[in-house]
Amino acid sequence: MKRFLINELGNLIGEEILIKGWVYRVRKLKNITFIIMRDRTGFVQCIAENSVIDMSNIKLESVISIFGEVKESKNVLNPYEIGIQQFELISSVNEELPIEINKETLEVNLDTMLNNRVLSLRHEKISSIFKIQNLIVQGFREFLSKEGFTEIFTPKIVAEGAEGGTDVFELKYFENKAYLAQSPQFYKQMMVGAGFERVFEVAHVYRAEEHNTSRHLNEYISMDCEMGFIEDEKDIMDLEENLIIFIINKIAQEGKKYLEILNVNLPKITKIPRIKFSDVLEILSKEYNKSDLDGDLDPDAEKLICKYSKEKLGCDFIFLTHYPRKKRPMYTMPLGETETHSFDLLFRGVEITTGGQRIHDYNMLIDNIKYKGLTPEVYHNYTSIFKYGMPPHGGLAIGLERITAQLLGLENVREASLFPRDRTRLTP
Amino acid sequence: MKRFLINELGNLIGEEILIKGWVYRVRKLKNITFIIMRDRTGFVQCIAENSVIDMSNIKLESVISIFGEVKESKNVLNPYEIGIQQFELISSVNEELPIEINKETLEVNLDTMLNNRVLSLRHEKISSIFKIQNLIVQGFREFLSKEGFTEIFTPKIVAEGAEGGTDVFELKYFENKAYLAQSPQFYKQMMVGAGFERVFEVAHVYRAEEHNTSRHLNEYISMDCEMGFIEDEKDIMDLEENLIIFIINKIAQEGKKYLEILNVNLPKITKIPRIKFSDVLEILSKEYNKSDLDGDLDPDAEKLICKYSKEKLGCDFIFLTHYPRKKRPMYTMPLGETETHSFDLLFRGVEITTGGQRIHDYNMLIDNIKYKGLTPEVYHNYTSIFKYGMPPHGGLAIGLERITAQLLGLENVREASLFPRDRTRLTP
Repeated sequence: MKRFLINELGNLIGEEILIKGWVYRVRKLKNITFIIMRDRTGFVQCIAENSVIDMSNIKLESVISIFGEVKESKNVLNPYEIGIQQFELISSVNEELPIEINKETLEVNLDTMLNNRVLSLRHEKISSIFKIQNLIVQGFREFLSKEGFTEIFTPKIVAEGAEGGTDVFELKYFENKAYLAQSPQFYKQMMVGAGFERVFEVAHVYRAEEHNTSRHLNEYISMDCEMGFIEDEKDIMDLEENLIIFIINKIAQEGKKYLEILNVNLPKITKIPRIKFSDVLEILSKEYNKSDLDGDLDPDAEKLICKYSKEKLGCDFIFLTHYPRKKRPMYTMPLGETETHSFDLLFRGVEITTGGQRIHDYNMLIDNIKYKGLTPEVYHNYTSIFKYGMPPHGGLAIGLERITAQLLGLENVREASLFPRDRTRLTP
Repeated sequence: MKRFLINELGNLIGEEILIKGWVYRVRKLKNITFIIMRDRTGFVQCIAENSVIDMSNIKLESVISIFGEVKESKNVLNPYEIGIQQFELISSVNEELPIEINKETLEVNLDTMLNNRVLSLRHEKISSIFKIQNLIVQGFREFLSKEGFTEIFTPKIVAEGAEGGTDVFELKYFENKAYLAQSPQFYKQMMVGAGFERVFEVAHVYRAEEHNTSRHLNEYISMDCEMGFIEDEKDIMDLEENLIIFIINKIAQEGKKYLEILNVNLPKITKIPRIKFSDVLEILSKEYNKSDLDGDLDPDAEKLICKYSKEKLGCDFIFLTHYPRKKRPMYTMPLGETETHSFDLLFRGVEITTGGQRIHDYNMLIDNIKYKGLTPEVYHNYTSIFKYGMPPHGGLAIGLERITAQLLGLENVREASLFPRDRTRLTP
């Protein structure tokens, strides 16, 4: 017999139907028992007459099927309910649940929530996070596909730690040493040079960073794109501005239910302010008496400049531009002696994107690798592509868990990862 | 000035426009020079008068911009051409190209092609492979999203080698040992149990297999899905049948240009034949005198049964069902003493999917782990989820590079990976 989903029942008043799902609540009165069933689409109240069917012993979170009639009703969940005629226990719960998930808010600490991920995810305030995350990813892909970008899949096992970074995970690759990719940076640039011009990738990246903060994961999802034939980094910022607006509009249209569950208001943006890094330092010093920064912002400074953007410029986002050359990777296009054609995008106190124009001239790249104190020969596989016709190009990367966490007001980025990996967590 | 793409020029006859791209061919005659430019959308012939502009020294694969007038013309490429008024060299080529890419077919062996990936990908017979691959991935996601599946991202760094397999890459994870995930199997099952019911993931997976064949990669893209509340594995086969039809229709509609470049005919299917594994053995023995198999097919047997399906049943695909229990992983739902509710999907001689119903009963799972000679305690994080209400479920995985290679008639699966990783290859 066909299974109906709970959100389809509104059109089936008077019909006899079969539904399947988890037992969310059981309340036994003298003559009747109320069962609330949950499936992936919602909740429905079902009623058993105790003289006919005994459902009083059924355990919370058991999987059951219910056959019965859809009746008009006025309950808090729906304008209908199910009069139970038969039920079947599909999968029983024989142990006590390690966390109590069947109430308004999940009152457990982060570690307990993550240790019991399969149960905590059954709570709609938790699952909704990932439904919104889905829309972010879909929006990213849709927008870029529409703009002529091709999706790519590039290797995560690489011969060199990319970007001259040190925080790489090392791997035994048969007889050789290998590393987990910190980003698809080199590969996405290669794909621009391979004639694809515009590419994007949504994939895992790895950072062997020792610090265990609320904003770091050692494995996370990076939404990357790279675009050829740009004028400079402003083309990339324009792209990201439109991309962010597109994603927010998509969530507004398709994610309404989840936004309500999470009690979240989407930011309203039409234009994202752009401030030079050097001006940011001045603002921080003048407005907030913060002047201990050297070439990059610390978490405190990120919060303050976002506060400034929100209060003075009316925007939850802010582009910081003209980042100092000494703090940017070797592939970043310099601007004069000390600055670069690169930017960060901050959102509600946290950096969610680094982007910018890249060097496309072979000799300039070799010089800049040396300027950064690195050895050009190490990057031979990468640098050689610049000898055979490389257009001016640039790109960006958005951390999926970070943008999700900032958008939904989550305190810890781990809440936006189904099964996070951090300094100490390898399970579940 | 705005850059136009080559495929936009048909509507701009008589206009002065700017285009940018790579120099594909140069042919100097006495009075004029023909330049064929390539951008991501196609090719266009451009003509310079030698007395006005000297473009004769321009090197193949340089990146240039051309400003000129779009004129009607009858050339092999388009019904128009560009009369060059100005050009600019954006990125020069100063070294001889290591491979000759500017002809009808790329005549290099596989290693040379992969060693020079950025150049070989500029050839439209190579780039078209990945444009089709894009449509396969998009089709997979679109179809499943439409069917109520949620996209998930699960960890690739795991504490245990999944599925009891031995071919795992080992990793130093701070003080601990970890492994690269062989599949998202456990996690996608967990997400069914987490109430999402239907999930999919498209992501990298890792197999540390020693063999270096034309059908194996050590890092590849797995298109996985898992579905709750099924009757048995036939629901999964029905799903895959419709999924494959959807993908092929999508390619037929959106990939015409690339199919023509690759000279590929799509398979026509409405229904995929289903044959029991035990019957397959009989057919192989009777029809092809092949009887050296024990519980699984070898590559030769896969080719023969596909030949049979094509010639006798008229289909490029074939489902093999009722796989023997002794050869299937511990999570596979048994069927009697010796068979399972699992299947493979073969396509033109190669297995592209393994799928089936999984065990959802805790005690049965523990028993089956023991039956397979494994230790239940090792899988504690996985098995514990079966205690708290798990619906009957099943799923499948499709190897992206394999389905791409089979669909396009590529001899080696490496041709369907942008930057393949195999027994010896870690670069580029």
